[in-house]
Amino acid sequence: MAEFDLIDLIHKRCAIERADVRLGIGDDAAILRPPPGLDLIVSTDTLVAGVHFPEMTSAQDLGWKSLAVNLSDLAAMGAMPVWALLALTLPDADRTFVEGFAGGFAELAAQHRVALVGGDTTRGPLTVTVVVHGFAPPAHVLRRDGAQIGDAVFVTGTLGDAAAGLRCLDPRDAQANALFHAPPETREWLISRLLRPTPRLAAGAALRELASACIDVSDGLLADLGHIAARSGVGIEIDALELPASSALLALFDAPDRLALQAGGGDDYELAFSVPPAHVADVQRDLARVGCGATRIGRVVAGQGVRLLDANGTPIALRRRGWDHFA
Amino acid sequence: MAEFDLIDLIHKRCAIERADVRLGIGDDAAILRPPPGLDLIVSTDTLVAGVHFPEMTSAQDLGWKSLAVNLSDLAAMGAMPVWALLALTLPDADRTFVEGFAGGFAELAAQHRVALVGGDTTRGPLTVTVVVHGFAPPAHVLRRDGAQIGDAVFVTGTLGDAAAGLRCLDPRDAQANALFHAPPETREWLISRLLRPTPRLAAGAALRELASACIDVSDGLLADLGHIAARSGVGIEIDALELPASSALLALFDAPDRLALQAGGGDDYELAFSVPPAHVADVQRDLARVGCGATRIGRVVAGQGVRLLDANGTPIALRRRGWDHFA
Repeated sequence: MAEFDLIDLIHKRCAIERADVRLGIGDDAAILRPPPGLDLIVSTDTLVAGVHFPEMTSAQDLGWKSLAVNLSDLAAMGAMPVWALLALTLPDADRTFVEGFAGGFAELAAQHRVALVGGDTTRGPLTVTVVVHGFAPPAHVLRRDGAQIGDAVFVTGTLGDAAAGLRCLDPRDAQANALFHAPPETREWLISRLLRPTPRLAAGAALRELASACIDVSDGLLADLGHIAARSGVGIEIDALELPASSALLALFDAPDRLALQAGGGDDYELAFSVPPAHVADVQRDLARVGCGATRIGRVVAGQGVRLLDANGTPIALRRRGWDHFA
Repeated sequence: MAEFDLIDLIHKRCAIERADVRLGIGDDAAILRPPPGLDLIVSTDTLVAGVHFPEMTSAQDLGWKSLAVNLSDLAAMGAMPVWALLALTLPDADRTFVEGFAGGFAELAAQHRVALVGGDTTRGPLTVTVVVHGFAPPAHVLRRDGAQIGDAVFVTGTLGDAAAGLRCLDPRDAQANALFHAPPETREWLISRLLRPTPRLAAGAALRELASACIDVSDGLLADLGHIAARSGVGIEIDALELPASSALLALFDAPDRLALQAGGGDDYELAFSVPPAHVADVQRDLARVGCGATRIGRVVAGQGVRLLDANGTPIALRRRGWDHFA
């Protein structure tokens, strides 16, 4: 199968028609027409087999996830997604794999009307790089550097599910046997949180005029909030007991394990954000309107770094605060 | 070394200040301000170690080439480059490698005032994906689908040098011994054409109002002209004797070998383009103004596909017409 056919096959499965795409795949580059008056928001994330996803991940799930993690970055900026590019490196020209990948990618792209406008298919170890483009009004782009002392800290959804899903898939996990005997629908739900994350795009757009800073939880809550703290020049305190847990997490893990998953597990793709006092009352109502729950989990304080506190306000030390690919 | 530090290190070496970059590296995404009234041109290319470049390639050359091959796509569209993103997958966090890579990348980025606005550094087999953004006036973007019967066909610069450079580096090459004894400056020049290609950005811009179709020569002249022929619904005839050769190519290869390199060798990153009769007289003058030579090599005809003709107008068959990563 020729390189061109692979891209074409993926493109056909992702056939979203957009008037702002003047010329899509098939030339040296795409020709796009940015809407006037908006800022262009661009992000890229790479997934490497065996590093960012288990080797056993299905092509469908990989297609979904590779787009989802990128859309999540746009969500964290409050941007509306429009265009994507895909650089797919494959060990061989496996049509079944490519069709599965295209299916998962297209399913999520269709939900958000994202057009695939460019790509490159190459031979090599399985690696997926996606680039996404979105737009947002210049005055209301969400950044990491706007948190102020006195702001409340929130997170959408529940935390730790994706990390628990990864443990369900890990044959070396000490608790694997217990997890293996959990109800199949509970296991499957946790695994789906790992492999089919939901980018919080509507929540990000709703937060544009409410949040002072925002980030998506990809490396782990404490690690990611650490970026807000560092960029904003503030400290953040998180109340361990307030961290939201799914019923699946509550059913399968005891409190210390659960906390480690919630505070340090990555791949949740929820939004963590700071909110000035004047807007705190609006957050849950405005997010509920777009079908997204949110929990108040802490506050922005003077100082630096992120501290996890127990019910008495005493700092808790976790072994693993987040994920660093080169640590 | 942490993931963030790697990106930061590359970013610091590529510190191009642009007013249209509202927020660069360091948040979930870049915030960019497109200029009004222009179309956005976006392209991506991936380079995989051992597939797209020899394993022995220096980090500096790889940094240069990974940006050059992408800028070449913008040149083929007649676009002016503005922003780049870099997804770099590395076996380990080798600071020396990253500094070398950043140096080569930054050297070319500075020449064209391209700002590095985003990226992702991951661990895995050495793979480089670059995404470039440029702008062009909507009415004058160069495409592959505009060639008309009766147009002349041109190519910039000389052909086959990069493929000859690759043979100089290949220990299995039958002619390696002769090439090894060639004058060092000749070998080095050919190798530099492979590892440090020049994206023809000024030439592409100069061709906006002259060319009817354009492509960059990455896979090999005949293969790439085949894309123009297919997209334009025409045939193309190329006169083998007209193909431009460098003095290095003339000195080191006999005529049949030279023709194979010129017509089928990839990685030249010259521009091949069609020109309506009314503009033919302007091409060489307008390109000379931007310091780029061009040669008339053939014509657009009725039919389909690309034919290479000898001095008598008889078609010549080549063993290898171009490069296809999955062929």
